[in-house]
Amino acid sequence: MLVFASQDHRAHNPTELHLFAGEALPPKEVPARADVILGALQAAGLADTREPDPLDTDPSATALLGRVHSADYLDFLRTAHERWCALTGNDGQGEAMPFVRPILGPTYTVPDHVLAQMGRYSNDADPLLAGTWKAATSAAACAVAAARAVTGGDADAAYALARPPGHHAGPDNFGGYCYLNSSALAAESVTAAGGRAATLDVDTHAGNGTQAVFWRRRDVLSVSLHIDPSVEYPYFQGFAAERGAGDGEGYNHNLPMGLRTQWPEYEPVLEAACRLVEDFSPDVVVVALGVDTALEDGVLALQGDDYLRLGERLARLRHPTVLVQEGGYDLRVLGKNVAAVLEGFAQAS
Amino acid sequence: MLVFASQDHRAHNPTELHLFAGEALPPKEVPARADVILGALQAAGLADTREPDPLDTDPSATALLGRVHSADYLDFLRTAHERWCALTGNDGQGEAMPFVRPILGPTYTVPDHVLAQMGRYSNDADPLLAGTWKAATSAAACAVAAARAVTGGDADAAYALARPPGHHAGPDNFGGYCYLNSSALAAESVTAAGGRAATLDVDTHAGNGTQAVFWRRRDVLSVSLHIDPSVEYPYFQGFAAERGAGDGEGYNHNLPMGLRTQWPEYEPVLEAACRLVEDFSPDVVVVALGVDTALEDGVLALQGDDYLRLGERLARLRHPTVLVQEGGYDLRVLGKNVAAVLEGFAQAS
Repeated sequence: MLVFASQDHRAHNPTELHLFAGEALPPKEVPARADVILGALQAAGLADTREPDPLDTDPSATALLGRVHSADYLDFLRTAHERWCALTGNDGQGEAMPFVRPILGPTYTVPDHVLAQMGRYSNDADPLLAGTWKAATSAAACAVAAARAVTGGDADAAYALARPPGHHAGPDNFGGYCYLNSSALAAESVTAAGGRAATLDVDTHAGNGTQAVFWRRRDVLSVSLHIDPSVEYPYFQGFAAERGAGDGEGYNHNLPMGLRTQWPEYEPVLEAACRLVEDFSPDVVVVALGVDTALEDGVLALQGDDYLRLGERLARLRHPTVLVQEGGYDLRVLGKNVAAVLEGFAQAS
Repeated sequence: MLVFASQDHRAHNPTELHLFAGEALPPKEVPARADVILGALQAAGLADTREPDPLDTDPSATALLGRVHSADYLDFLRTAHERWCALTGNDGQGEAMPFVRPILGPTYTVPDHVLAQMGRYSNDADPLLAGTWKAATSAAACAVAAARAVTGGDADAAYALARPPGHHAGPDNFGGYCYLNSSALAAESVTAAGGRAATLDVDTHAGNGTQAVFWRRRDVLSVSLHIDPSVEYPYFQGFAAERGAGDGEGYNHNLPMGLRTQWPEYEPVLEAACRLVEDFSPDVVVVALGVDTALEDGVLALQGDDYLRLGERLARLRHPTVLVQEGGYDLRVLGKNVAAVLEGFAQAS
């Protein structure tokens, strides 16, 4: 499998306590995640690894960013940490955490102040670090490179080892460990090349950022299967009733399932999601490949060979495929589960 | 001065690090605030102190809560910490901090899940503790008791030692240390008694919660003078262009001023605010008495006798007056500044 990976993800290395479920806990979206994945792929002989071209030296790649995210959000994300340091006197090593937000009330203004913008452009408690922009653009570069390899005919499938993940990042917000939406960027790479893309999000959490990006569009199909948001992150979006709007109505599909769902109940939901993709008949499928569906991650309950079968089913879509890494946090099983998906995919291709 | 104070505020005693300006720092809205204020008032012979009736044993007082806050928010605030403990296995001593929020996007749902509701019903990083409801209702009880003493003719003026503060709490959100809007409750006590109230918010931060409560109403005038929100909390609201809506249009006034404003520049803004109150000719004035305008609090730059003069000007409104404690965090000057306001008020009455 063609694998795009960059070492620049290490620039985003949060170490301060952060809020999860209302408690301050150690970060779990950490550089070691990418290390265990790459290690497992290499050990399994699955990694034909390439370094992606940097995103910011390629105007056509930078233009893709502007199709997924708003210009003001991108400008904020690129400059926010430096502005926060200037405001607070931080030496540059600190982690800036959003706090105050607009009230969902009758009126609000977003002033040109970094603390206001941190609240406006996020919907969660994720930190901004000096290296967040560098890392997020390296993840996006992996996704774009993988998509271009597939649309350009270099390969039928390619995998982007994207870290930090992306599928919770909307047009103008970060959250859920995500800053730039790499899966949406891969889909935009397909449309920019004249094709039609479908995103199939198998992360354990709803791909609410991707949904928001393509909410009013019918040229990209968005399908996500995930834990019922009424009991788990991202809580506010990812419900079955959310089907897109305007031109995009009917081109967004959420397939929620219950806590601790195992393969026998997971498989028919996956099957339904795959049929939606097949009915759309895309030129390229973008798989938002979170493996935090693992039993060990505590939300759904996939394990072991389930990931081989997942990879096989994705291959049987019989479409050129871009796989973009999303979640997966238990370092004991993360690498082997990703490797199992790619192995199953390769075997069935 | 008739002073209403309760010891129940001690039940809200945050000790964990919290987010200010994007950094995790020690809490500063702490029980010692009320202690230094009461100590200073007693030392100055200004405190004729009474314990308020508990709010939750008086149906007419409880009904006031329902006029200021939504029923679902009140239900959330009363039960959230216990639900959070049940969810997380916390022993009851923990501090539940909001994290994930609705995206300001095309669609969202708020599920009946405590973590979702913590994000929906707040716009900041304030914690919920086991004793938050008890403390917030004791603060509200002080404000209601002070208002009733004034509307009932027991006194021309009364002071409520309300802690935690309240003026950032909107109809259905907590934030900025505030959970229940005591100043708005005092104003509602006046309207419930058949009078017209004006709120005059002299806290250094915009009274955005009070503004939101009365946004569409003309029976309560809302006037707030404060630091320009484009450079300081609450950032998103408190601008001069916000004047109310519907029936309330023209009955909300924000008077922002610059960082480190001193008395010579502050006094004309206070004068303009007082004239707006006088033009409204209310039956009762509710002063949201934050003294975080103090030089030592680092935003505006009032000091020493400025607070005497502030109290004198408030007395010269010549209306029955309810003074409700809001902000003020530097424990070295907090007590003497509140005492100076009440002393100036008493001397000029």
